[in-house]
Amino acid sequence: MNKPLNIAIAGLGTVGAGTLKVLRRNAGLIEARCGRKINVIAVSSRDKGKDRGVDVSGMKWVSSASDLVKMPEVDLVVETIGGVDGVARSLVESALNAGKHVVTANKALIAHHGLELAKIAEKSGAMLAYEAAVAGGVPIIKGLREGLAANRFHKVAGILNGTCNFILTSMWNKHQDFATVLAEAQRIGYAEADPAFDIDGIDTAHKLAIITSLAYGCLLNIDAVYVEGIRNISILDMEFADQLGYVIKLLGISTHTSEGVLQRVHPCMVAKMSTIGRVSDAYNAVIVEGDAVGQVTFEGKGAGEGATASSVVGDIIDIARGGIYKPFTIPVAALEKLPVATMDSLKASYYVRLAVVDKPGVLAAITSIFRDEGISMCSFLQNSRKPDETVQVVITTHETLELSMRNALKSIAALGSVIEPPHMIRIENL
Amino acid sequence: MNKPLNIAIAGLGTVGAGTLKVLRRNAGLIEARCGRKINVIAVSSRDKGKDRGVDVSGMKWVSSASDLVKMPEVDLVVETIGGVDGVARSLVESALNAGKHVVTANKALIAHHGLELAKIAEKSGAMLAYEAAVAGGVPIIKGLREGLAANRFHKVAGILNGTCNFILTSMWNKHQDFATVLAEAQRIGYAEADPAFDIDGIDTAHKLAIITSLAYGCLLNIDAVYVEGIRNISILDMEFADQLGYVIKLLGISTHTSEGVLQRVHPCMVAKMSTIGRVSDAYNAVIVEGDAVGQVTFEGKGAGEGATASSVVGDIIDIARGGIYKPFTIPVAALEKLPVATMDSLKASYYVRLAVVDKPGVLAAITSIFRDEGISMCSFLQNSRKPDETVQVVITTHETLELSMRNALKSIAALGSVIEPPHMIRIENL
Repeated sequence: MNKPLNIAIAGLGTVGAGTLKVLRRNAGLIEARCGRKINVIAVSSRDKGKDRGVDVSGMKWVSSASDLVKMPEVDLVVETIGGVDGVARSLVESALNAGKHVVTANKALIAHHGLELAKIAEKSGAMLAYEAAVAGGVPIIKGLREGLAANRFHKVAGILNGTCNFILTSMWNKHQDFATVLAEAQRIGYAEADPAFDIDGIDTAHKLAIITSLAYGCLLNIDAVYVEGIRNISILDMEFADQLGYVIKLLGISTHTSEGVLQRVHPCMVAKMSTIGRVSDAYNAVIVEGDAVGQVTFEGKGAGEGATASSVVGDIIDIARGGIYKPFTIPVAALEKLPVATMDSLKASYYVRLAVVDKPGVLAAITSIFRDEGISMCSFLQNSRKPDETVQVVITTHETLELSMRNALKSIAALGSVIEPPHMIRIENL
Repeated sequence: MNKPLNIAIAGLGTVGAGTLKVLRRNAGLIEARCGRKINVIAVSSRDKGKDRGVDVSGMKWVSSASDLVKMPEVDLVVETIGGVDGVARSLVESALNAGKHVVTANKALIAHHGLELAKIAEKSGAMLAYEAAVAGGVPIIKGLREGLAANRFHKVAGILNGTCNFILTSMWNKHQDFATVLAEAQRIGYAEADPAFDIDGIDTAHKLAIITSLAYGCLLNIDAVYVEGIRNISILDMEFADQLGYVIKLLGISTHTSEGVLQRVHPCMVAKMSTIGRVSDAYNAVIVEGDAVGQVTFEGKGAGEGATASSVVGDIIDIARGGIYKPFTIPVAALEKLPVATMDSLKASYYVRLAVVDKPGVLAAITSIFRDEGISMCSFLQNSRKPDETVQVVITTHETLELSMRNALKSIAALGSVIEPPHMIRIENL
């Protein structure tokens, strides 16, 4: 039996405490699977006395995370502090510099500083592992880096934020508007007090940038991600989507074509009966398309104590077994700088909802604009009109260029008979 | 850069040729991801001249697979010959004995001899890798052994045979009976000339036994798998399933409870809108339940050249990177002999279809039998009766004991008014 792997956990919030619980509960099992013991020898946390539902005795307790790195007997540091800079970043840097392995669930940190950190890891021979940073308990990093490593990837896409998926699912199930459901999600702890990170798509963008780099072997480029969140999704759009056989999801989608890499995060209409259409509540799913394997889907809980801890401990087990790889599969110096494809170059189908006044010639004006932009309509819906009510006109299109659609919507918005800015949602066939 | 990994491919059928294609097409990518070259230096095949759609020049060509093991420069042998004994088995044994790594897609071999082979591998320090043996291109072995290794598993279940899933999907989509669809599947190469292995559930049983051992850390026990195939599935049962909100799938299900391990392969009714219910055609899906992560689903193509090659090459890449693990996660000597739970002890919901003659008292007799066995009915359907036609009575039950259901069906079959053996299909909530 090999010597134990000594680990320190920085931060004992949900993820840190969850990691400790799994390591304790399944200690025998994990030891058998690794061929060595995993000992948690130190933790750092501000509040020692707090009840976390797990026994925290028998470990060294330090108040500053940086003290963990100074302990020569620590082999691996679990970073669960969070945040893109500050303590988390300096802790991970100093740990890797000291040749200590790091396991983290911090997607913002990896999305912004992953490459610099990976370089340090490559130099010192330590592992930087971050399975828990993307899609919670779903082993998608391992899938891209190892299980499907035979493939050239051309697309990765998924529901990567459990909060947004929970909100969208609840809106539809309860027929409640965005603000009401968000407030409820905040009350039960599914959304943060400041929800912008989740609902504006930033968290999804972080995760998408990470899996894009892994999939295509390119430099991580968080700034190149096009991002739209879910604040403007209405029940009305959900009802029309339903009539059309769709459901609305916030997706992160990344494609690698001859035009370059396009990373985008925005609400999408997807077929109700599709794999991705059925993923509800706080579940995540990631679809990967490889040249040999075709489409593979990974689905599971995207957040929560147990799911995140499963991935953190999975990484620890890998390292305990000697699985020390390049954090981005290939050395950072060999990652390609691939051209960035613009959103204007996207070819997609579109859903457009227009609130119009009911008078002759309105439809003719709208359809002429589509015609002039070379946009071919696929379906047309109009809700039953009551006297004095605004008419909702819904158009779906065949595949067209995003640039043409934007131009068309600009012209349509300028029509006097269109009384709200047009509502546009892209339709994805996944 | 490390020295190249030299591999030999035994057998150049669909899997062997597919492996060669992927290794050639993605050679640069794979080299970057492994940090070393993968060289195919030798192949064995009976027919050198056959066009396989891939360049086979530059390799040593031997007619006997056993000659590959004799080549000292070969580091790894890919076994794609197939079969549970004979050449495949002796090749793998001799390769592992010689300290050469083995990658195989041969589920029958692993299900029957996996443990003996793993012991040889453990002794010689070689790796025995078999990702392609279960669920084709879906990296489920890696998921159980590594990505989700933090978890105590209590259930694994899935659609593990693409041929059966294709047949069941086609029967329903085309409203054609089993024999017609099987003939068509054979014509297009989706089913073998002798289809028994697939349609009688044996192939699913092999795969289930493998993932059961991996999930629970127990001895592989193929003989303990309860097996029913899909020969008796009728369009009539599919129609009733549809009315009830279900679809019929052949599942392999393994559970680990206080009563022991129960492995079973049989047709199931699953909710149409469930993850597993939507997996159609030749796709496979595996659901894993872990104590930390909850439910995780892996879905992708279960067979075919590209999907299988993806997993074979994934294993090769792992080995090239130095990922030499115990083939069954923990040493074979440490695998537990867990008690076998009997089918009689299964608690499930049931669908029962009875063809009865239309005369007074029939239903009373049937329902009395259910009552006497303590079986609680959940729903009741009867198809519209035309004069002189047999009446089809469909009953679904609440959760009950398999033993009680078997006893009830025996009594019901003995009723003079029941004119066919009862049709019973278990209902699974996955």
